[in-house]
Formats: sequence, structure tokens, C-alpha cells
Amino acid sequence: MKWVYIEDLSKHVSQEIEIRGWVYNKRSSGKIRFLVIRDGTGYVQGTIYSEKKDHPLFQKYDRLTQESSLHLKGKVKKDRRAPGGFEISVSDIKIIQISEDFPITPKKHGVSFLMKNRHLWLRSRKQNAILQIRTELIKAIRDFFDNNGFRLMDTPILTPSACEGTTTLFETEYFDQNAYLSQSGQLYNEATAMAFGKVYCFGPTFRAEKSKTRRHLIEFWMVEPEIAFAQLDDIKKISEDLILYIIERVLENRKTELEILERDIKPLEQVKKPFPRITYEKTIEKLNNKGRSMKFGEDFGAPEETLISEIFKQPVCITHFPAKIKAFYMQPDDKRPDLVLGLDVLASEGYGEIIGGGQRIHDPELLQTKIAEHNLPQEAYEWYLDLRKYGSVPHSGFGLGVERTLAWLCNTKHIRETIPFPRLLYKIYP
Amino acid sequence: MKWVYIEDLSKHVSQEIEIRGWVYNKRSSGKIRFLVIRDGTGYVQGTIYSEKKDHPLFQKYDRLTQESSLHLKGKVKKDRRAPGGFEISVSDIKIIQISEDFPITPKKHGVSFLMKNRHLWLRSRKQNAILQIRTELIKAIRDFFDNNGFRLMDTPILTPSACEGTTTLFETEYFDQNAYLSQSGQLYNEATAMAFGKVYCFGPTFRAEKSKTRRHLIEFWMVEPEIAFAQLDDIKKISEDLILYIIERVLENRKTELEILERDIKPLEQVKKPFPRITYEKTIEKLNNKGRSMKFGEDFGAPEETLISEIFKQPVCITHFPAKIKAFYMQPDDKRPDLVLGLDVLASEGYGEIIGGGQRIHDPELLQTKIAEHNLPQEAYEWYLDLRKYGSVPHSGFGLGVERTLAWLCNTKHIRETIPFPRLLYKIYP
Repeated sequence: MKWVYIEDLSKHVSQEIEIRGWVYNKRSSGKIRFLVIRDGTGYVQGTIYSEKKDHPLFQKYDRLTQESSLHLKGKVKKDRRAPGGFEISVSDIKIIQISEDFPITPKKHGVSFLMKNRHLWLRSRKQNAILQIRTELIKAIRDFFDNNGFRLMDTPILTPSACEGTTTLFETEYFDQNAYLSQSGQLYNEATAMAFGKVYCFGPTFRAEKSKTRRHLIEFWMVEPEIAFAQLDDIKKISEDLILYIIERVLENRKTELEILERDIKPLEQVKKPFPRITYEKTIEKLNNKGRSMKFGEDFGAPEETLISEIFKQPVCITHFPAKIKAFYMQPDDKRPDLVLGLDVLASEGYGEIIGGGQRIHDPELLQTKIAEHNLPQEAYEWYLDLRKYGSVPHSGFGLGVERTLAWLCNTKHIRETIPFPRLLYKIYP
Repeated sequence: MKWVYIEDLSKHVSQEIEIRGWVYNKRSSGKIRFLVIRDGTGYVQGTIYSEKKDHPLFQKYDRLTQESSLHLKGKVKKDRRAPGGFEISVSDIKIIQISEDFPITPKKHGVSFLMKNRHLWLRSRKQNAILQIRTELIKAIRDFFDNNGFRLMDTPILTPSACEGTTTLFETEYFDQNAYLSQSGQLYNEATAMAFGKVYCFGPTFRAEKSKTRRHLIEFWMVEPEIAFAQLDDIKKISEDLILYIIERVLENRKTELEILERDIKPLEQVKKPFPRITYEKTIEKLNNKGRSMKFGEDFGAPEETLISEIFKQPVCITHFPAKIKAFYMQPDDKRPDLVLGLDVLASEGYGEIIGGGQRIHDPELLQTKIAEHNLPQEAYEWYLDLRKYGSVPHSGFGLGVERTLAWLCNTKHIRETIPFPRLLYKIYP
């Protein structure tokens, strides 16, 4: 008999098949027993019907508990009323293991209990749905870049120097010297962009930040494209296209999961390009008109980002930031050298910054000056300066955080649910 | 005028277009000047023809040096003789930057010089070709798993405990405790496989090994599938299918790059399934027949792997290893409890092990005994033991190393050329 995954049941209507999975739920009603089985790709209801109270399948049914593992044989039937649209009339059950006292029951549990049992919590419907959407999101991101001529160029995690400051770096011994865990692949991306034109890296990044908010992870995944010859306007457009493509793909392929999460999809369907584009200074002005009292040079925090979301009801591109709040490599604005050509994109619905990037300095002398001004060790940046010596070109790029984007798409309050094993302040188990 | 990438020239025959890139090479012959431009997606020859010796384009041509950056305008012409099949008759050149004394010239350089200049070495034709194939390889791996129902489930890099021994681990402070950089996502994969059925993780892994061979990287990428309900035979088949799919995709889409590398593709074309399948003991026997003197319990080294390649001329699946040379979680053979159901796949042509995996212990008591026998701290494995308590099922998986596989596909002697920024013993710059 054929072992079939639940997501493929539609190809096996009226056939006898075998499902391998775990008991998610059960209930009985008179002469009929219902078993909801999960196999990781979906949920299906199996029904056992008999006139005989002591039917052998009823006896097996009685033994089954939540998360018991089994092989279940039966015929696939189309049934509009059944969740998923199919039902199996069970002809045989082979019990693999009876699970005793699975700790996560349908009742409500505290977060610290669930986090300690993250390895089991993953089996819950809602967690499963979020991470199925994560899979789709990452696939969509990769397809977007692959289909648009970008070359995936993995950048190293172990790096000899800091990209943006040293206070939030994880350090480790690297044989006879020290190494730091990467916070961004950008500097290396700039080297590969000069070799491959359009590149992206996509890997885990690390920030040893002592902040305990619902938006911060210690270890998170980030995709970072970098494009030789591209300027600020080019990456604005690419950011928009990327975000629209992601939304489209998730809405197309993960509707069931969005329903499980009770995600109202209207706000996502309404996202359209061009996003509102506004400078940092204009943003300050708008915020102050709404009662804030921000000054030039201050960074946006969560309350400001939420307010911006309320004003625009769309993702927003903010550009032209004060040089002093951005990194040393940012290209100054020709007309206003106190501003840099940075780009932040804020998600809608108050989910805050999901993209950060901008145009990089391509002039060798200007870059050298900036490195000195920021008191960075020149020798660590020799190779980076080389990129401005040998055929330097204007270039731009950005980073998109996977987990923040996913939190937005799923309308999930806390980012800890958007990665299989979240790393949080003081929390690294399991 | 339209900015076009070289790989897309075939769509613009007879059109006036603009290329943005760098000078790779130049030569002149009478009234004609040839410029080979690279833009990261390919190489194209531009020709400038004039009767006038002081033609302004000739003057620009004279200034151009290796790696100078430029915009080049002209008409695309089909030309069978030209590398890539197209030529551009140049109508205008805009110089962005003249590059002075690019350190990597067509003459031969020493390896340590090239490694120090890795950020520039990437622009060389051969390095570019290897990494273009890397991009295709990774895409093929992801497509294979995505198209076969696997869910990507990223596993953490920062982990509280060691997966396989502690001697080769990078350690870092994680707030008030210690953390280690992951050497494998497997244990976490086992948790996600129970939640999602078929999963894979794909990320960087770290081994602080003091070995300086042409096969070892300190930081390398590995893809690791894990399948609930799968047994040893199932993953043998998946390994074969994966390897065949990878070869097919690279041969199909990266022929030009394989030609640049002068890779004889016949040995790759001849790979077919099923691969020779042989037990560890039979392998020892065969090696000893060829003059080695290996004893039961010894591990294969590079010379043995090369000899196995010579015997079979195909990738080889080796199984049923002595328990004592494999990890604690490996499922023992029913009939021979001193053997475990491990799986190694060796590439052909002497490239050694590219896949390692096997069937995992699913019995809770047996796993507990093994953890004790290996003197592992039980409390660190509580969550891992939970996976055997709550609906345990037989399951199997493996890991495939990206760089070793790529070295094989490219027939590249040293693994350091198979990743953009290799991390080697004592070498972490740039």
C-alpha cells in the first residue's frame, strides 16, 4: 500500500492509501470514531464506523492518545465538510508508540513553559502554520533574487573585524586570534558585487544586544542584496518589488495557514507600489504634527514607527537620514552632505523596520576620511578600500530581516514564534 | 538607452544597448581595438573600428587598464567566433574609474598572495566560474528538497551543548552562560521532522579542527534532510536522487563555466543509479585485497577513499559501520548490534566523503543507555529524549557538504576555492 502525505491526498481520491503520522485529536459519537491525524504536511480526519462495540479498531482507537504515532490505512474520500476537504475511512491502524502525558494540551500554557518545550510546541497547529509560511517566505525571497539574475554568494560568519561597532558582537577564539560572529554580510557583498554584478547573501546573523523586546532576536536570518552600478532609486524599486512578490506568494500558497492564524489578509492585499516615499526630515515633521516632539538626529523607535504606519496605511520608504545616525560607509547626499542616501522600509500595520540599506560610498578618498572620522582601524579595512581603488563604481544594497517580515505577514505579536528555535536574551535552550 | 547584463545579450541582437562593467582584457590590431568586458554575468568583446588614428574612442581605449570601470554603449551583433557568441560594436564609452596596478595580472601568482587578495581574486575567470557553479549547485539542492515536499527549517547556530564531541567546537559567551557554534543541525532537525514530516536545514557549520588539508574548511555549508518514518534504505535512495539531480542541473545550466575550468564532464555524465552499495566490512575486505591492511574499527582516510574511487568508478554508498566509530544516536543493526545503520556516500574521482548520515535510534531506553555510555550530560539531552517519548518513530537523515561536492563537480583540487571567503587554519582575512 502506498505511503502518502496528507498534502497530496487530492491525488489519491477513492484509493486505499497509508498515512504515517501522529494523533492530533479524537472524538467519538455513537457508532463512529473520529481521529484527526497530522503528518507535518497537513491534518486529516479518519473515521471508523462499526455496529460492533468491541470492533478491533475501536479497541485501538481507545488506546490512542495525543501525539501517539501510527500508520493508518484507509480509503480517501472527498468531503467538503472535512477540514482540508478529504476524509479517510479507516481500514487499519498500526500503532507505533503510545505517547503518554504529552505536555502541551489544548488548554492554555504560559509562554516560559512553551518556550522550554519549543521542540514539542512546534507540533501545535498555530506554530506549524507560522513556520510553514516561513518556508514559503524564504522560498519566495530566493526565487525573487534567483529569477532576477542575482548570484547567491555566501558571506562568512566568522569575521576578523566588526562591521558596525563592537558592543553587540559575539566573540570567539579563532586559533591564535579573535573572531566575531557576523552582524551583516554587506562588506563582503560589496566585494562579490564587483565580481558578479548582482549578488545576495542569505544567512544567520548575530547581535548580542541586551534588549528584551518583542522585535529582537539574538540570532536571526537576513537576506542582503548588493548591486554594482545601482543607486538609491534603484534599490527603492527593488525593495518594493521584493515585498510585493513575497506577499503575493504567501497569499497564493499559504492561504490555509493564514486562516489557521486568523490573519485578516485585507491589509496585505491592499499593499501596492509605489510605497509612500518620504525623507527623514519630512517624517519628523509629520510625527511632530501628530504630537511627537522629535528633533533632527533622533532615531525612530517603536512608538514612532507605529505612528508612521497609522499615517500611511502602507509600507513606507524613508530616505535621507542624518549622517551621524548611520554607518560610516553611507553615501552622502550631493546637495546636503549632512544627510546620507540611506533607505529604511517600514512594514505596515505597525510592524516597524523590515529593510535597512542604502547607497555606499564609492569614492576612495571620501571612504578613507570616513573610516578615520569613525576611529575605525584602517588596516582592518584595507581590503574594503581596495574595492574603491580597482574599478570603483556606485553601488547600493539592503538587508531584509526574515523574522520581522514573517511576524508582519502572520500578524504575530512576538518575533519568538517566527523561527524554529529562537535565541533570546539569556534563553538558549533547547 | 537600455542597461543590459551580458548574460541577456541574446535578447538584444541588433539593438543599441549599454553594458556596465569592468575591463577584463584588451588588444589592438591595425585599425581595430578589442575590449573584453566583464559585468559579473559573463564576458563580451567590444570592437572599435576607425580609419582615424586619433579617434576619440581610441583615445579612451588607450587610457583603459585592467579592471577599469565603465559604461559601454553599442550595437549587439551575433558572432559565432566571439566568446559567448555575441560582440558589441562600440559607439560610446563612459569611463567611471581608471584602475591602477590591479594586483592580480594574467601571470602566475602564489596561493598565499591570492588568498590575501581573495576579494579581488574573485574577479578572475576561473574563480568566477567555480562560484557561478556554486550558485547553481545550491539552487539545485534547494529545488530538489522543495520540490519533494521537504520543509526548510532553519536550525540554530548558537547552541547550548555539543552535538558530536567538544574538542572541535568554537565557544562564545552567551550573556551569563557559554554557547557553541553548531557543527550540525541534526538534533534540531529531528525535532522539526516530528513536527513537519520531512525537513531540511541548510546553513553554515563550524569545526575548529587543527587540520590543514585540501579537504577541510573551518566554516562550511551543509544541507541536512531529516525524514520521519524513513529508514536506512529510504535515505540511500534519496542520496542517490539528490546527487544525480545536482549533476544534471549543473551540466545543463553551467556548461560554459565547466568549459572555462576545463572540467572533463564524462565522469559526471557517467554517474548513474543505483550507486554501488557495500558494507563497511566488505569495503575493508576490498581495500585489503588491494594491498592495504585495515582492521575492523578503523576509519577510512583520504588514501582509502581514493582507492575506493578507483575500484568502483562511481559514487559509493557505504553502510553498517562499527558502532564505536560513529555517533551515539545511530540505530544499531538488529542482527549485529556492534554495527550501526550509518550511511556514507563517497564521490567518484577520489573526492571522498560528501554525505554522512544514517538511521537514528528511536527507542527511548536504548537512546538513554547510549547517552550514558558516551558519558554525555543527560540534562543537556532532555529535550532530545522527549522526541522518543512522545510518538517516537523510526527516522533517518544525512548531511551533504556543499564545498566538497562543488570541489568534485569542478574537479578543483583545493576546497578553498569553492567558497567566496574561505576560513582556514589560522586564516581569516579578508
